[in-house]
Amino acid sequence: MDVAADERVRAARAYLLGVAEPPAPALTRLVTEQGAVAAAERVHRGDVPREVAELTRARAHRTVSPAELDRARQAGMRLIVPEDEEWPAWPLLSLEVAAGRGVAGMLSPLALWACGQSPLERTVRQSVTIVGARAATGYGEHTAAEWAYTLAAQGVTIVSGAAYGVDAAAHRGALASTGGTVAVLGCGVDAGYPAGHEAMLRRIAERGLVLSEYPPGTRPARHRFLVRNRLLAALSAGTVVVEADLRSGARNTASTATSLGKSVMAVPGPVTSRMSRGCHELVRSAGATLVASAAEVAEEVGGSGVDPEQRPAEQGRELDGLSRTAVRIYDALDARSGRSAEQLATEAGLPVGTARAVLCELELDGLSLRREDGWLRGRSVR
Amino acid sequence: MDVAADERVRAARAYLLGVAEPPAPALTRLVTEQGAVAAAERVHRGDVPREVAELTRARAHRTVSPAELDRARQAGMRLIVPEDEEWPAWPLLSLEVAAGRGVAGMLSPLALWACGQSPLERTVRQSVTIVGARAATGYGEHTAAEWAYTLAAQGVTIVSGAAYGVDAAAHRGALASTGGTVAVLGCGVDAGYPAGHEAMLRRIAERGLVLSEYPPGTRPARHRFLVRNRLLAALSAGTVVVEADLRSGARNTASTATSLGKSVMAVPGPVTSRMSRGCHELVRSAGATLVASAAEVAEEVGGSGVDPEQRPAEQGRELDGLSRTAVRIYDALDARSGRSAEQLATEAGLPVGTARAVLCELELDGLSLRREDGWLRGRSVR
Repeated sequence: MDVAADERVRAARAYLLGVAEPPAPALTRLVTEQGAVAAAERVHRGDVPREVAELTRARAHRTVSPAELDRARQAGMRLIVPEDEEWPAWPLLSLEVAAGRGVAGMLSPLALWACGQSPLERTVRQSVTIVGARAATGYGEHTAAEWAYTLAAQGVTIVSGAAYGVDAAAHRGALASTGGTVAVLGCGVDAGYPAGHEAMLRRIAERGLVLSEYPPGTRPARHRFLVRNRLLAALSAGTVVVEADLRSGARNTASTATSLGKSVMAVPGPVTSRMSRGCHELVRSAGATLVASAAEVAEEVGGSGVDPEQRPAEQGRELDGLSRTAVRIYDALDARSGRSAEQLATEAGLPVGTARAVLCELELDGLSLRREDGWLRGRSVR
Repeated sequence: MDVAADERVRAARAYLLGVAEPPAPALTRLVTEQGAVAAAERVHRGDVPREVAELTRARAHRTVSPAELDRARQAGMRLIVPEDEEWPAWPLLSLEVAAGRGVAGMLSPLALWACGQSPLERTVRQSVTIVGARAATGYGEHTAAEWAYTLAAQGVTIVSGAAYGVDAAAHRGALASTGGTVAVLGCGVDAGYPAGHEAMLRRIAERGLVLSEYPPGTRPARHRFLVRNRLLAALSAGTVVVEADLRSGARNTASTATSLGKSVMAVPGPVTSRMSRGCHELVRSAGATLVASAAEVAEEVGGSGVDPEQRPAEQGRELDGLSRTAVRIYDALDARSGRSAEQLATEAGLPVGTARAVLCELELDGLSLRREDGWLRGRSVR
């Protein structure tokens, strides 16, 4: 049974997404402390710390009503919020962990606008991000399309940015197979950007999801694509750079993925090709794994969760990847007496939102149990 | 002033090279213990341990006289022996160190046949080995030729195996520049193999050296190329694999270079090319460094010794590379009282031949001093 959030929460988060340009740490802090509805009311009234007031002053008057959400829904757009069961709390937790380590700009989004009906968490549970140069060569487009086709046919969702070149080839490869694909945009999901990709974006929404943390109507801008890159990196288990010049958005996504503790892979190419220089440099200097086939990509991000049969074998791996936080929550659990998320968060020294996300994911693995009196420890990982 | 070995020693080693198929550990041991002249006489008489007798029985009767060496010289072939100043004791020491660690087949050659007048040690002092597929693609041949040209023009000698494909492209690239190149063969230097490369081999001899541990007249055979590969790997500071299928001679040379503690580099290529698969696998699984330009190769093997001005900075590096052996000998030296190579070998627990090679090289770096009463410690490395 899907658990959907209260419509007031959804309207509040829609408002909060629009009221300040993300990432806005002070606003996120307010939401974590007060909850979305109270935070939205206070921002609207101007009853907020000075830092938040400065961030939100220009747009605080723009309210979002449940009726407006309904109209957006009729136009094919919906808002996914952290209170929804389909919220990808586990992959996005990597952003909070990185933020906790002091990596700038690594905030989890307050919500995500979406076109498409696929449940987000399930869609990205086994996924890989494929990115690369807009000015890709035939080699790069061929590789992106072939690998995306092969991986999608195996049930791996292809996450990319819908840009010209490598991104589009990756989405189209996935669409050509039976698999799913997710586009994350740096503008509103209705912006019709990039020009000429409208039909592709419609097909992505039919088969998977088109996502953005920018409200409908937001125009593309360079800084928004860089902010967006953290979501490309965070949503999947790993990022493959197919082609990239030495300075490129794809390399930015790759270095973000590294900060998030995700796998970073690079496709080699001819040393005579400018468009492979960034990939070679990633292998030489940034610790990226050279991948020469779709099978090697699958091996690298392998078994990140779609198949319940595989999950026991993955636990160690998943906990390893996020060990500090997950282990701290796990250790705070007791096998016999239930504890609230708030209690556990206090004990583990983590934000309540983080504790809740970790608890839900531990539950999927049977490592935590939800009872009326609170959370219990499940069977041991060790 | 060049120090050349006694002609009796040279004739003895020419005989010993021909009397057993290398590598022949038992024969090498006899030569180390008895010296080349005594060992040759004993092999000829059959007055040797059973193991050596079995190895040498079939060919023990084939003597080599100084007159025969003269005839070979008139035909353009000469024998370089460990007693010659031009013997590359330092690079070949890597074979003895690997043998000491138990790596099979890693014997230093008893001598080397050569076409060409370049002094061997100086020629390979700053060098890189470039190898790859015989069935190279245009991409592989282009890359090998371009990089060899660039490196050779910078004074880096190109070592390769004179085979079709990548090897020939590397030699030709070096010949097209002003630099030197060395071919190491798995047959006699006069075997005219591979067919069609006679003119290239003549040009290599004019500009650098054509080498083989097989006596003139020895025909090519598959196992000889594998034995030869250790010399390709040992003579230079590092090996670059330009193109290779998953199973290939070039990969054999690369794995030998790894055993010898030398740098191993691989050139990436299109993932769609069969001939780049071996290179990608070397990076993925064998710890090879991905190199995407000649400059990156130069950086990797950089400053391996041609410029005396650079030597002080390299000492740490060179001693690091061979630390166990070199440091053991260095530690056995005393700053005031001279010791013989035999005494030092005993103290360091190393063969006398190894001790001598190390002492000579330490001397070049000023770390050992030769006096009438024996060897002294030079200035400190630390």
